[in-house]
Amino acid sequence: MNIPKSHPRYKSLLYREKIVEGINRGYTSQVGLVAHGRGEAFDYLLGEKTSSYAHAACEAAVAKLMSTRSVLSANGNVAALCAEEYVTLSKVLNAPIEVNLFYRTPERMKAMEKRFLEAGAEEVLGLAEDAEIQIESERRKVDSRGIYSRETVLVPLEDGDRTEALKRMGKFVIAIDLNPLSRTAKKADITIVDNIVRAVPLMVELAKKKPRWRGFDNAANLAGSMAIMQQNLSNSQ
Amino acid sequence: MNIPKSHPRYKSLLYREKIVEGINRGYTSQVGLVAHGRGEAFDYLLGEKTSSYAHAACEAAVAKLMSTRSVLSANGNVAALCAEEYVTLSKVLNAPIEVNLFYRTPERMKAMEKRFLEAGAEEVLGLAEDAEIQIESERRKVDSRGIYSRETVLVPLEDGDRTEALKRMGKFVIAIDLNPLSRTAKKADITIVDNIVRAVPLMVELAKKKPRWRGFDNAANLAGSMAIMQQNLSNSQ
Repeated sequence: MNIPKSHPRYKSLLYREKIVEGINRGYTSQVGLVAHGRGEAFDYLLGEKTSSYAHAACEAAVAKLMSTRSVLSANGNVAALCAEEYVTLSKVLNAPIEVNLFYRTPERMKAMEKRFLEAGAEEVLGLAEDAEIQIESERRKVDSRGIYSRETVLVPLEDGDRTEALKRMGKFVIAIDLNPLSRTAKKADITIVDNIVRAVPLMVELAKKKPRWRGFDNAANLAGSMAIMQQNLSNSQ
Repeated sequence: MNIPKSHPRYKSLLYREKIVEGINRGYTSQVGLVAHGRGEAFDYLLGEKTSSYAHAACEAAVAKLMSTRSVLSANGNVAALCAEEYVTLSKVLNAPIEVNLFYRTPERMKAMEKRFLEAGAEEVLGLAEDAEIQIESERRKVDSRGIYSRETVLVPLEDGDRTEALKRMGKFVIAIDLNPLSRTAKKADITIVDNIVRAVPLMVELAKKKPRWRGFDNAANLAGSMAIMQQNLSNSQ
């Protein structure tokens, strides 16, 4: 599909097309489109830009990810929307990418691995399926060298069940989630309320400055993002 | 897919599956899933129930639809989510259903017609393509006996361009749109900020009481819906 660059919703339509491409290439599920639409709505309320709160959350996230043994979880929408940037982040943080899917099939796992190898990853974890975490869904299947054993897990576009399971295991969970009301947003140690297509490149930039970990008040940060959404809901009347 | 009724998000998952079924049967486009996701987010902020504002908007809408020559526009998500209820509404209001699609193909038009005939409609407008309204998209193709000539148009899950074009033609536009900030929501004469799966059956019930048209302040009503969303954004901290 040809989208004219002059279209007022050009970027929005482009990202949608990337997810459709992910579906056609087998690494993204159709349900990824629903999740994307949900994200579009919350991003709209954020004004479609990275807030100062999201910026602070990205900085804290990078500091934590760099100072501990970390892993970057990946799902179909990450593969569709920002595979290259995710690989770059993985390299600057020296943290592997692990594929972890709710709608897991061997074909999708292989297509995900292929997508990240194409994007420049040297290795992609998650296909080994040699460990489990305590949840019922297919997301329980993890890699002993990755999510299972690492202290800090970056979980973009997450489901609440897994976040809770990772917290029970004592891990430090960093979420990227446009919905500040989600279970994940509330349970994570750091929640980056931002669109991954903006947050991931920003994290790459921030990592180059090697920020130091200074602690983080997630509840206060979430309240800040919610205040922006509330403000946008009243301004637009 | 079997969804256990005990699942906390049972209804949400069920409606999602209905859209996937619509895609598989050819009447819903993949982009319908994105629109659905967007709706899910706004519905979440509404508390997933019909507000007093939405109830008042439904009542005014029914009064207007009953007292003027009306038509009910239908797209792929309406067909997927509430075809039967839409046909019932069409009958109680004595207003025909007209299919009008952004991603229009002859196959989708036929599949839409089939879906509404199955659901009990006696006739489905929109396939004749014998008139046009002033927009560039495929949505310009309308039926001379329907959208083109009728005074009042119900447009669920709408795009802003068409709403503006219908307004320029002097029509009374009633929108069902979960996003109170959308162009459609602001431009329509009545905007029902509610999920179609709740609003359409409610309109059927209200129509039986034959409400009288008493005028409607759409800006005030929209502000009420936005206030609910703002409230939910702060309560959930």
